[in-house]
Amino acid sequence: MPLKPPAAAGMAFADVDTPALIIDLDAFERNLKRMADFVGSAGVRLRAHAKTHKSPIIAARQMALGAVGVCCQKVSEAEVMVEGGIGDVLVSNEVAGAAKLDRLAALARRAKVAVCVDDAGSVPEMEAAAAKAGVTLDVLVEIDVGARRCGMAPGQPAARVAEQIARSAHLSFAGLQAYHGTAQHVREASARREHIARAVGQVEATLGALRAVGLEARIVGGGGTGTYEHEAASRVYTELQCGSYVFMDADYARNKRADGGLFDAYEHALFISSTVMSVPEPERAVLDAGLKTFSVDSGMPSPWKLPGATYHRPSDEHGVLDLANAKVRPGRGEKVLLVPGHCDPTVNLHDWYVGVRGFGTAAAHVESLWPVAARGAVF
Amino acid sequence: MPLKPPAAAGMAFADVDTPALIIDLDAFERNLKRMADFVGSAGVRLRAHAKTHKSPIIAARQMALGAVGVCCQKVSEAEVMVEGGIGDVLVSNEVAGAAKLDRLAALARRAKVAVCVDDAGSVPEMEAAAAKAGVTLDVLVEIDVGARRCGMAPGQPAARVAEQIARSAHLSFAGLQAYHGTAQHVREASARREHIARAVGQVEATLGALRAVGLEARIVGGGGTGTYEHEAASRVYTELQCGSYVFMDADYARNKRADGGLFDAYEHALFISSTVMSVPEPERAVLDAGLKTFSVDSGMPSPWKLPGATYHRPSDEHGVLDLANAKVRPGRGEKVLLVPGHCDPTVNLHDWYVGVRGFGTAAAHVESLWPVAARGAVF
Repeated sequence: MPLKPPAAAGMAFADVDTPALIIDLDAFERNLKRMADFVGSAGVRLRAHAKTHKSPIIAARQMALGAVGVCCQKVSEAEVMVEGGIGDVLVSNEVAGAAKLDRLAALARRAKVAVCVDDAGSVPEMEAAAAKAGVTLDVLVEIDVGARRCGMAPGQPAARVAEQIARSAHLSFAGLQAYHGTAQHVREASARREHIARAVGQVEATLGALRAVGLEARIVGGGGTGTYEHEAASRVYTELQCGSYVFMDADYARNKRADGGLFDAYEHALFISSTVMSVPEPERAVLDAGLKTFSVDSGMPSPWKLPGATYHRPSDEHGVLDLANAKVRPGRGEKVLLVPGHCDPTVNLHDWYVGVRGFGTAAAHVESLWPVAARGAVF
Repeated sequence: MPLKPPAAAGMAFADVDTPALIIDLDAFERNLKRMADFVGSAGVRLRAHAKTHKSPIIAARQMALGAVGVCCQKVSEAEVMVEGGIGDVLVSNEVAGAAKLDRLAALARRAKVAVCVDDAGSVPEMEAAAAKAGVTLDVLVEIDVGARRCGMAPGQPAARVAEQIARSAHLSFAGLQAYHGTAQHVREASARREHIARAVGQVEATLGALRAVGLEARIVGGGGTGTYEHEAASRVYTELQCGSYVFMDADYARNKRADGGLFDAYEHALFISSTVMSVPEPERAVLDAGLKTFSVDSGMPSPWKLPGATYHRPSDEHGVLDLANAKVRPGRGEKVLLVPGHCDPTVNLHDWYVGVRGFGTAAAHVESLWPVAARGAVF
């Protein structure tokens, strides 16, 4: 059974129990609006990545501002989105195994569903599942544009699989998946631009190979919060797949802009609230938030508005706040906000978002409690 | 809503969807028995740490084999244990804030509940909560025996707080919490032994200071899977708080024994099952299990019975299996088992345990589906 939420609507923010997953609703809404404005002016579509937030409520907000649908990373995540009313879902990933393909095909009876392949062997499996369900599945060929994760070689190999898809009675060739994952967190702006320039070249080569066999990509998808401006400017990418922009984590905030400043187009809108539960020494406070409250794969969380304080030594349910150089030293029982190092796996630890209006002001209060509906949807 | 389980009882193990959290029930039961036998022969009590498994079902099994109760790290975790029928719970941690203390005191109406303090300021707060609920709370003073996390200075400072507890009408001084967290994963056996020898010295000094003020510690708690033999041999620790022994993760398997071999008193009983979803190159397979399926804070998971294969480059829902030096190269659609680097935060990502009988044999099948009932219980 899911645990009860750590707050109730209307409650003063100061009364919310800790640790909790907090959204600054004002900053969050500004982030949504900024990306919507960007894609509107850039002439590309946004298919926001729902793996970041795992919430049909947030997905619906993105679509209300113009997003054409969402990306999911797993079939179970897509199931939660469709169940929550989202009508257009791309599983931006490979799906292996008949059981999962059957679920995916069943979902296509209820919503517009697309999926990726990067192997000729997948196509007959997918065709069989779609035929069994009596649906037509949109299929994108994933190409490796530099990240060396999934994806087939660009150009003719990809075009051959596209032809195979196009020949399948219950599959429709929809386009290319060309996401460059490792470029997203490259710190230097010029290096990120070069990575995406090479990716664009590989997309163009593949589009050429497709034209040579009489096929057209309706969708060319890619782009994350670290690089989306380059994909948008390329004129070959048609859909951006940004996710983290809604929350903006500490890791993305370490990327640099072209002018050398730090990437700040989006505001930190996601926080972990914690409480000092022990102060064994004046310079060392122990927080009630550790490895079960946020993910540390992309670095430690950053204490919010506590200059000089650093978080380190996380254990399961503790973390140490080093206050040696801090101007303010929070005492036992006081609350400390942290910006997660990596928002996606941090969100995935929690059952509830606590949406706060007036965050950072004396009037801060809980406006909404949204379930992290696809939390744990890994299969 | 919790997601449906990735399996059904009776199903062949080969048909279980991935990723899933798998228990080898035979190895798990041998682990439970080994620890029960050890504490029986060593003359100490076991108060197994439930933060590892978060399951009242597993806790009940531990108690059926002689454990006197469980440790929890959070009040919400303790609530799940008591709700699940566990009658004796120590929150082996500090609890800050009136809201949490009220919940803790309420729980003491339904079960035997103890908690730790490491600050004189906590005592009146705890007394107020216990008085309001009309209960008597057992309270342990946590001392820092070397881990430099929570805990007060051993000796007289701890004895003074113990006196303060003993003077409180609704609190009962129960003893000392003296867990040495950082010693657990020190690789060399001799170094772990020295850490615990120093911890024992600090416990003894504190017991002396307690005797000087006429107090006695009914409980001296500590010891984890890395060091418990030393605490047990000390004759000053009365309760071991081991958790990970039930599952045995890859990180504990890197500890050395006194004879230089690797620590293998317990068997790996917890696995993540995954599927190869892409094989872009013969030497590179991509698995459907990443940062949302296991925790990487203590190192990468280890591929099980795939000599030469290593798991690396985890992203949210992917991980790369380097097969350059592997004797066997699993193909697309094949399943791969992984031993998690750190079991506690890995378990906390999943809603269900899939209990497999005959694991590793052709007859392997799903015997039980146990909810990870306290998953996400961080407050």
